[in-house]
Amino acid sequence: MQVKELALAARQAAYALAALPIDKRNQALEGIKKALIRNKEIIFARNQLDLEDAERESLAAPLIKRLKFDEQKMQDVLSGIDSLIRLPDPLGNTQLARELTEGLNLYRVSCPIGVIGVIFESRPDALVQIATLCLKSGNAVLLKGGREALRTNRALYDTIMEGTRNILPDGWAALLETRDDVNEMLSQDDSIDLIIPRGSNQFVKYIMDHTRIAVMGHAEGLCHTYVDQSADLDQAVKIVVDAKTQALAVCNATETLLVHEAIAMDFLPRCADALREKDVEIRGDEKTQAIILCIPATDADWETEYLDAILSIRIVDSLEEAIAHINRYGSHHTDAIVAKDLAAQQKFMALVDSAGVYLNCSTRFADGFRYGFGAEVGIATGKLHARGPVGLEGLCTYKYCLLGSGQTVQETVDGTIQYTHKDL
Amino acid sequence: MQVKELALAARQAAYALAALPIDKRNQALEGIKKALIRNKEIIFARNQLDLEDAERESLAAPLIKRLKFDEQKMQDVLSGIDSLIRLPDPLGNTQLARELTEGLNLYRVSCPIGVIGVIFESRPDALVQIATLCLKSGNAVLLKGGREALRTNRALYDTIMEGTRNILPDGWAALLETRDDVNEMLSQDDSIDLIIPRGSNQFVKYIMDHTRIAVMGHAEGLCHTYVDQSADLDQAVKIVVDAKTQALAVCNATETLLVHEAIAMDFLPRCADALREKDVEIRGDEKTQAIILCIPATDADWETEYLDAILSIRIVDSLEEAIAHINRYGSHHTDAIVAKDLAAQQKFMALVDSAGVYLNCSTRFADGFRYGFGAEVGIATGKLHARGPVGLEGLCTYKYCLLGSGQTVQETVDGTIQYTHKDL
Repeated sequence: MQVKELALAARQAAYALAALPIDKRNQALEGIKKALIRNKEIIFARNQLDLEDAERESLAAPLIKRLKFDEQKMQDVLSGIDSLIRLPDPLGNTQLARELTEGLNLYRVSCPIGVIGVIFESRPDALVQIATLCLKSGNAVLLKGGREALRTNRALYDTIMEGTRNILPDGWAALLETRDDVNEMLSQDDSIDLIIPRGSNQFVKYIMDHTRIAVMGHAEGLCHTYVDQSADLDQAVKIVVDAKTQALAVCNATETLLVHEAIAMDFLPRCADALREKDVEIRGDEKTQAIILCIPATDADWETEYLDAILSIRIVDSLEEAIAHINRYGSHHTDAIVAKDLAAQQKFMALVDSAGVYLNCSTRFADGFRYGFGAEVGIATGKLHARGPVGLEGLCTYKYCLLGSGQTVQETVDGTIQYTHKDL
Repeated sequence: MQVKELALAARQAAYALAALPIDKRNQALEGIKKALIRNKEIIFARNQLDLEDAERESLAAPLIKRLKFDEQKMQDVLSGIDSLIRLPDPLGNTQLARELTEGLNLYRVSCPIGVIGVIFESRPDALVQIATLCLKSGNAVLLKGGREALRTNRALYDTIMEGTRNILPDGWAALLETRDDVNEMLSQDDSIDLIIPRGSNQFVKYIMDHTRIAVMGHAEGLCHTYVDQSADLDQAVKIVVDAKTQALAVCNATETLLVHEAIAMDFLPRCADALREKDVEIRGDEKTQAIILCIPATDADWETEYLDAILSIRIVDSLEEAIAHINRYGSHHTDAIVAKDLAAQQKFMALVDSAGVYLNCSTRFADGFRYGFGAEVGIATGKLHARGPVGLEGLCTYKYCLLGSGQTVQETVDGTIQYTHKDL
């Protein structure tokens, strides 16, 4: 089938999905679990073929590691589905209830967005995670994974369809496999409501430039930690080391450290020692170079998401300079201040324009599971709709249901009926 | 100044605006009120020049009526600002409060979106309404009004700046005046967070095709009323007449009437009589033509927002056919069912994919003021972020504030600290 037809089928399925009660949706999730267990040897075998190709093409080791889908990954995927089943229904929640006039009541009720296109990296487990999140939230989904995982993705997709047959409307999930498919998907604005691209900033911008469908970008994380002159320096060292090194190739790792010049002489040597123990390469601005041994940082460093054991350091002469640096060079993902001074804390929280603004803790906490959302489709770096870690709630919209008994607007103009605007 | 510079200035102003307490923002609204009263004769005189040009260019009468800015419009604008001042602060509201682990608390707090570009029609009062809504919600704004209102808009903009000087950061609002300005604005994705275009579907699509900035479209309203076989027919006639005729050139007027064939013979003659009394032209499908005298409807009619005293009518053989027609041809704005049968009511509410789904009342109720929002920037026809009438809440986003005391992610991995995920 062409992408246009898949999208139209998803559109039709979405209308039916929206009306499916939660026990049916959970039953479908159970069906997926059973099918995964049933088909697991086939899935592992297909994954083996993808892995062999990847090795033949000499893919980088971290990429091959992400591509692997083994017993351990299967257990993670299954327990992910279990916790998704336990999460409360995100649909049908009344967010507002108001009497407009006697016998005319307005309700704002959560409902699915409709049809979502997701483009994700080469982790095959992401396919199951995204498909099940969309299902729980009543959305139809078009899935496009990494080229390297082609066979694994096909096996996982077929398994998902097998597990949900006779429970969900046909066409509720579709698998796209080529770059041409993606380009065709971007023009289906009559059928698709939202595109979620996960990848580099450049990739997300490409998607935004080539579609009029709404895009919820999950792009770079260029996170900062700022150590204020009022900081507890031991705490600051501990936080910076965690924020930079607890994991490297992750969007919530700190890439740039900003240090107030009043404490730089005290703080930087201690912090540099701790970072060197973790083999972190330090790139510092001129003032930093005068205090510790490091590679000179260039302007390009402030704009680089290293995703590696590299940290750039800049000394600032004020809190305001730190905030200006973050708002200018950051990706509005997550930024932290280490400070004891209340005024500095408040100013940072108010003026830093990021999805996460943190006080005295590691930027690595920016994550849907750590926030207790139970599941996450990604971390949105835009400001509209959902911001930061996106769970089930971010895959829902709402509709206004107005329940009347014959009311007309003319009667409110005549004065026959009056607005009461009373919350119910 | 170039648009790029205006947008950058707005960006800088937005950071400061976000931290401005509500009493300052309300003080600025008071300042605007005073300046409007002070300058009103100048504003009326400028509007007179715009009106003379419009008459010279033989603009249509409804357009000239909208262009007019007189004492009456001034009073409306002033009372709009008064009610805006009385509305609660949309910023700083805690939407979620959760302990992640002991001493590490997560808060989701509402905050402004940042910089908003609004392109609106030739009503000069819209300029004041939009600017004050953005101000109340802490957003900087770029305003582009209709060409016909150039002099009035300039006078109103100058007045707003005069009234807020020394209270708000410079550059918080800017006026764009040419089509080239709009095109330049669309490329300022580094400075602008959201574009709100008000106008035709075609215009909104043009904007979406030419920017990677998020767009909240306020486009067509192709609304339907469906009269089910279980309807109270007297109520149905009353609702249809109001939905079509209470106002004509409005997005929430019903443009297509769908009638279940089981009651068409009873209902249509009565409904047609009532509509003809209001001089409504009826265009019917073949089955309708067999029952009442009317102009034959073509497929194009189902896709046309008349904004006029014209109603298209189609007879459907089931509730499902009505729902399919609405989802296919509608603009997902507002659609109503008239029905007594509970199952039909519930099915319609669940399956119609529109911002407003109404039962037994007129589609004309779709309006921020009628919903009790106190103010409205428009009616969003997209599904993301805000849907339906958009008030102050739709001009806000949120940030996650995480307040800690030295916590690291490594400690949660080591098991030194445990997640509690306790709502506060």
